[in-house]
Formats: sequence, C-alpha cells, structure tokens
Amino acid sequence: MRYVLKIAYDGTDFAGWQCQKNAVTVQETIETALFTAFGQKLKITASGRTDAGVHAAGQTCHFDAQLTVPPEKMPDCLNRLLPPSVRIVDGWAADETFDCNRSAKRKTYRYRLYVASREMPLIDRYAVRIENAPSIEALRNAAKLLEGTHDYKAFCASGSAVKTTVRTVYEIRVEERAEYGLRVIEIFVTGNGFLYNMVRTMTGELLDLAGGKRTKESLLTAYDTGDRSLLGKTMPAKGLTLISVRYAEE
Amino acid sequence: MRYVLKIAYDGTDFAGWQCQKNAVTVQETIETALFTAFGQKLKITASGRTDAGVHAAGQTCHFDAQLTVPPEKMPDCLNRLLPPSVRIVDGWAADETFDCNRSAKRKTYRYRLYVASREMPLIDRYAVRIENAPSIEALRNAAKLLEGTHDYKAFCASGSAVKTTVRTVYEIRVEERAEYGLRVIEIFVTGNGFLYNMVRTMTGELLDLAGGKRTKESLLTAYDTGDRSLLGKTMPAKGLTLISVRYAEE
Repeated sequence: MRYVLKIAYDGTDFAGWQCQKNAVTVQETIETALFTAFGQKLKITASGRTDAGVHAAGQTCHFDAQLTVPPEKMPDCLNRLLPPSVRIVDGWAADETFDCNRSAKRKTYRYRLYVASREMPLIDRYAVRIENAPSIEALRNAAKLLEGTHDYKAFCASGSAVKTTVRTVYEIRVEERAEYGLRVIEIFVTGNGFLYNMVRTMTGELLDLAGGKRTKESLLTAYDTGDRSLLGKTMPAKGLTLISVRYAEE
Repeated sequence: MRYVLKIAYDGTDFAGWQCQKNAVTVQETIETALFTAFGQKLKITASGRTDAGVHAAGQTCHFDAQLTVPPEKMPDCLNRLLPPSVRIVDGWAADETFDCNRSAKRKTYRYRLYVASREMPLIDRYAVRIENAPSIEALRNAAKLLEGTHDYKAFCASGSAVKTTVRTVYEIRVEERAEYGLRVIEIFVTGNGFLYNMVRTMTGELLDLAGGKRTKESLLTAYDTGDRSLLGKTMPAKGLTLISVRYAEE
C-alpha cells in the first residue's frame, strides 16, 4: 500500500529535508521513526526537498509498505517517536500512480518579513528582519510583475539541473499585520512548481522592485536573458515556509 | 545614573527571570553581558519576575551605574553580547525615584492558545494547544466576569507572600485569527498588577466559564472565599508573554 503523510516541521535545527551524512535532516528523522515503529527500512519521497532552515506547515511524502497500521493512524503512531519540531498532521492511502512530487499540481510557499531596527526574538525564528520596507501597495503592485508564466531561470540558484526553467506562478498574495507593534509582512506565492531558491530570490526582487531599487525593465531583461545579476538578493532560509501542496486543480 | 532597559526574550530555554543556582536565567544572562561590557557587577531590577518558560516582548529593568555609554546606546552595546533569544530593544535614563517594579502603573500579558488535534510545531513554541475551544463570543462574555477590582487570592499560587491579593484588571481582550488553518486565540489581560500564576489561572478559568464547565456563581464564591479549588486549571507557562509595562496613566 502507498501511504501518504502530511508533515509540519520547524526547520531551524535541521540540515534540510534530504538525507545526508553528518547532519540531521527531516527525511532521516521520519525514516528513523518508521524504522523504530515497524522494524523496516522504509524510504520516503517528499513533494520536494526543503533547504536547511526552511520550515513546513504542509509538506507531503509517501512510501510503500505492508503494515497493520492504517494510514489515518500514522500521526498517532509516529508522533510519539518524533522530536517536537516534527509532527505528522495527517495520513491517507493513495494508489501506486500517485507520487507526492510528480503528482503535485500547485504549491504555496510563504515568505515572512518583519520591519525592526533590532531583532525581535518572538518573531525572528520564522521570519527575517529588514530595516525598512516598502508600503503594502507598492509590494502588491510589484508582485503582479512576478506572477504569470515565465522562464524563471534567473531566479534559480546556479548549478541545479532541471529540464525546463519555465514555471507558472498563479498568485502572489501580500499581507501585512502588526505584531508587538512591528510590521509583519507575509508573501504567499502559489505556483505549479518552483526552482531551487526561487521564492527566496523572488522575495529579494520584490523588495527591490517595490522599493524602487530595480525596475520592471530590468526584470523583463532578467526573464529574457536568465541573468541572475539583474535580480535582488536571495533572502535567508528561515523566513521561508512550505505552506501546502495541492494534488487536484480546484 | 539610573538606566532603564526594555527587553524582549524567548523564555523557552530559561529558568525564568530571577537568578538562581544551577540554572540559566534571563537576569543572569543580562548581568553577565553588563559585566562583559563594563567590567562591573551591576544588579538589575525587573518590573516583575517571569516564570520559567514565560516569554516577554516588553519586560523592563533598571540599574544604577556611572558609564560612558548613554542609555540609548545600550541596545547596540549589549545585544552583541547576548544570545539571540534575548534582545534589549530600548534604553533610556530615569531619575532615582523611578523603580521598574514599584513605579509600574499597568501591565499587559498575553496568553495564546491554539485549537488542534495534534501539536503544530510552527505555533507550539509560544502557544498552548487545546483540543477544542469555546466560541470567541462565549470567551468574551466570560472575560467580563474576570475584569474589575477583586480579591484574586484564589487565582494565586499558594505560598506566595504578598500584602494584599486585591488587584484591578482593567481589560481582558480576546482575539481570534486563523493560522495554518487552525484557530489561534489570544487573551490580552491588562491590570495594575498580577499575583503569581494569576494570568495562567485566569486563562484556565476563562476556558471553563466559556465552555460551561464552571459557573459565574462558583467564580463569585472563589472571589469571596479565596478557594483555589473552585477555579479552572493553571495553564502552562509557554503560552504566556509579558507584552508591556506602562509607567504613566494614559
């Protein structure tokens, strides 16, 4: 049977999703819990690999096994074996044509910023501090330029091997609220897929566009040429959270 | 000169504010930074001692010293010597009649709850999970019963020595929002002073009153008799945050 799990994690203390030597990863942590629970070395496949420090509210993964525990009992079964920073929030069965990565129709990431002259410990774990920020209107206008179907090659960290760098970004929603008297800005990016570092670079570019440091023209040239140097900086990992993965068009 | 500092901290890994043997406290951490910066053993006095695990967005403390660094430079001076979980967010001078504890006119605490069948790692650090919660309207109605000037003896952990257990709670504001699809409930309690464990016990009582587990009558009897057993449970420390301390009536 193919088991699918929905997972939330605080990425702060993990070296990302994917197993690697000499570092604790989310994948390894869950596979260890599965081994402890069932005595089998089960390999899990995620919707996508999150980087070191990136968080998730709705990551998904799947694995194949013949187990006596039904999928919906997986959260209770595994959570007691996991550290508090990782929680299985849901479990269900899928047929063997389903693949958490290849079947994904759309993903939503959130990048969270806050505006302060000094770090605020109660916000800083899941957000990145910036000294000042453009208005919400300017950010929303700039966000329109980053939506659509484009060759996002310039937004992709060099060295990654993908067939195509064309992606569709369905929506970029920018929200603002006050927390502890500080501006907290949340950028929700929904697309059919994302290149390595794409949302983190989009956030940097969004700040530059909205702040007047870069222009629509330089962005269009970046789309045309794939030239990374025309875009804003790649923002730190800890501000990024994988919010959800959708498997059927709504 | 009397220096006043405003401090934010993530209380998760601290054994509370007050110095004690064999445990790391916020007070000791700041006093160590002061010693490193100025080579003097300076003793700081807070607006009040927060318990192990309690957080702060706007704790205050003061100390007396003759230093070349002006108060407004204290954040920059000390933050580089502090762990990321503690940040000095402001500094100013006061005359010697000012005392962070005795001069305080009102304090605001926040207790944060979230409703979920399983822990959500991205919320759980600064909030307490409950399986189900009353409606926001029921919570707001119950909050009215806990406001006012009362003898809050029943809300106070036994063994604390205070002259009077009468306090005035000016306002209890209950807010709700959705985060990661979950209900997050924030209870802001503002009063002229708080007894030990008072806000944590008020939160437990608020849930019981709003949920119909306890009645207005039993609460009134608790006010009259000081009988702790008539109230709801004392909620865990990590849901509590000291939001602000005010020094002049507005």
